[in-house]
Amino acid sequence: MRQTHLFTKTKKEAPADEVAKNAALLIKSGYVFKNMAGAYTFLPLGLKVIDKINSIIREEMDAIGGQEMHMPTLQDPSLWQSTDRWSDDNVDVWFKTELKAGGEVGLAWTHEEVITNLMRQYVSSYKDLPLFAYQIQTKFRNEMRAKSGIMRTREFWMKDLYSFCATQEQHDEFYEACAEAYMRIFNRIGIGKMTYRTFASGGAFTKFSHEFQTLAEAGEDVVYVNEAKNIAVNEEVLEEADLTELGVTREELTERKSIEVGNIFSLGTKFSEAIGLTYKDAEGIDMPVIMGSYGIGPARAMGTIVDLLSDEKGIVWPESVAPYKAHMIGLNGDDSEIRDYTDGIYSALQKRGVEVLYDDRVEARAGEKFADSDLLGMPYRVVVSRRSKENGKFEVVTRATGETRELTEEEMFADFTDS
Amino acid sequence: MRQTHLFTKTKKEAPADEVAKNAALLIKSGYVFKNMAGAYTFLPLGLKVIDKINSIIREEMDAIGGQEMHMPTLQDPSLWQSTDRWSDDNVDVWFKTELKAGGEVGLAWTHEEVITNLMRQYVSSYKDLPLFAYQIQTKFRNEMRAKSGIMRTREFWMKDLYSFCATQEQHDEFYEACAEAYMRIFNRIGIGKMTYRTFASGGAFTKFSHEFQTLAEAGEDVVYVNEAKNIAVNEEVLEEADLTELGVTREELTERKSIEVGNIFSLGTKFSEAIGLTYKDAEGIDMPVIMGSYGIGPARAMGTIVDLLSDEKGIVWPESVAPYKAHMIGLNGDDSEIRDYTDGIYSALQKRGVEVLYDDRVEARAGEKFADSDLLGMPYRVVVSRRSKENGKFEVVTRATGETRELTEEEMFADFTDS
Repeated sequence: MRQTHLFTKTKKEAPADEVAKNAALLIKSGYVFKNMAGAYTFLPLGLKVIDKINSIIREEMDAIGGQEMHMPTLQDPSLWQSTDRWSDDNVDVWFKTELKAGGEVGLAWTHEEVITNLMRQYVSSYKDLPLFAYQIQTKFRNEMRAKSGIMRTREFWMKDLYSFCATQEQHDEFYEACAEAYMRIFNRIGIGKMTYRTFASGGAFTKFSHEFQTLAEAGEDVVYVNEAKNIAVNEEVLEEADLTELGVTREELTERKSIEVGNIFSLGTKFSEAIGLTYKDAEGIDMPVIMGSYGIGPARAMGTIVDLLSDEKGIVWPESVAPYKAHMIGLNGDDSEIRDYTDGIYSALQKRGVEVLYDDRVEARAGEKFADSDLLGMPYRVVVSRRSKENGKFEVVTRATGETRELTEEEMFADFTDS
Repeated sequence: MRQTHLFTKTKKEAPADEVAKNAALLIKSGYVFKNMAGAYTFLPLGLKVIDKINSIIREEMDAIGGQEMHMPTLQDPSLWQSTDRWSDDNVDVWFKTELKAGGEVGLAWTHEEVITNLMRQYVSSYKDLPLFAYQIQTKFRNEMRAKSGIMRTREFWMKDLYSFCATQEQHDEFYEACAEAYMRIFNRIGIGKMTYRTFASGGAFTKFSHEFQTLAEAGEDVVYVNEAKNIAVNEEVLEEADLTELGVTREELTERKSIEVGNIFSLGTKFSEAIGLTYKDAEGIDMPVIMGSYGIGPARAMGTIVDLLSDEKGIVWPESVAPYKAHMIGLNGDDSEIRDYTDGIYSALQKRGVEVLYDDRVEARAGEKFADSDLLGMPYRVVVSRRSKENGKFEVVTRATGETRELTEEEMFADFTDS
């Protein structure tokens, strides 16, 4: 992509009304635009990051047997009344509105009721189970206070997977497989090292449930961590009996701020019993389906990456989610011979399938281009200048480490197409 | 995909409450599920069709310079008040709701105001223009009556592109490029032959605007067509002066029912003047940006394909949008030797990158499998049976034409990986 074709631009200053580092940086660099409190536009560069995160999530969900689908936002009250989750007294994040044709509808803030009802069409026998279905879809939550930039908004993408099992054994097996898939996702998007599968209280169906918490100063949550033992618990699990069961003492745990980047719930038969989702077992007896739900917010993951990995110069994207692998800076573009040469290198990179953003601005100074490149945060910066044309070498700087190398064209191509 | 792993199933009967052929067939075959009037779930097979339509749309929009982004649903009233489109008296499809934090918000039914306001951040000079931005995003419209199955719903995906130009010449050039891209899209998804770029009244800015209308008995619209002259007009353009300008007479036109599958609008400076989107021209004078908007509904396109191409046995997908290219029917699966052989053919097809749905059910009868296959509508049906193992030949039936061929394994592989 030629930077002169990209309609967004970087700004000199961070927006005055954003306290969250993630949103401040993402707005300054032109990845997102704030429409109102809790509602953001994902601009072309920002949507590319979301698409890459979503691709990784899809790969991992498909690998454990997930089938992707898409459920609607608009909700008829009756379904939610059957589980006592329609009333504003019980659920305080509903957006509700009126149909012109008459009747109230709500905007879905989750989809347990919807998918449980839908599965009544397709599940009748134990032979239909287990099954796993997911979507990446927009949720609406009427938060009293939108905060933490793109991390707690009033509308947001959610990957929500729901599991349907005949036996507790089937459920436990999938629950573990999904927890492992979640850790693979967090590793692949570059926040795995700081992310803990955290023990939380389990509710009616299990001793413990699990949250995925990423240690970060900007976090809204608090967890208690022992890095050596690779264990984290939340406040609910700080009691001695629980800790003993987990093989850790209160003294060994350190309090840390964190961001909840994922959660997994055993739902038991709460929804299947309320809504009437049953299967016939091998003896022909009707049994309620055992369910689980598993959530990740792609934009929250994006915000976490920015909060965690950026530095004083700007964003630092891991290769797996960067909009472009390389940011090519063309210098001496006022000399048409150099510009043609630089255009040629850009074409050659593209031909080899390297995703490259090309700063082809003629008027911008070198310092401005370098500062923009640091702010935008592509993994590699490549400088092409008069000197490159003379000696056939390119300065390649790794954004994360600052490592600088002088590579020939062939070395650079090999490096970029290797992984 | 093994059919026993797919969680959806076909139904014996079409749903009683669906008059629209598209929804009746799509529900019966397990592509969509109706949640309430005007709100549908796209099940795994249905979402695959939408994804393929969206990929084609993206390719064509990217090819004419479109940059993809994603704008929010929730809308602050103030922007829409500036163009007089907030009041229910002026716009009768708003869903409006209240923020818990105080204040009314609306659910976006289009995004002209939003993107015009956003572009004020990025457009300042004629050098920034022209630019073209689009999204594929969910719109909400509070229709008095949801109808025509998945074609007129209360929430639906829309590809909406907006163009921003400095001169009328730039605008006209893009408008034409987009109209041609639209015809390429409709050709690629299999409805091009029946789709006309239809003349409609142009409003304040142009003599004519254009709708893309697909001739179909199930259509809600009416157009007047001359197939030989390859021209269609809508009711607004039936006056003699207009027709003369278009080189056609009223007598040469036949009235036909049709589905509006796309529209393109010249917006002039209506939104840029109201919201204050200007650019400095070469002389440094502030000028309002000239805009256009261009919409296609992917689910409406899907419904149109079903309405137009299905037959008495079921759906007939064009290859470009079919969830799978081939539907492999395994017969004699109660014989484990035959089943292993059939599994082998399935693996071999997958290894060659052929998208294949494999009916691996052991208990279902052959007749049931063939009926399901016709209903589901993949372009090619492949039968693998005891006979195939004996003589190395497979019956390949083309769904659209009924053409039946006996192919060897190599012939079949070559045929399926050719295009």
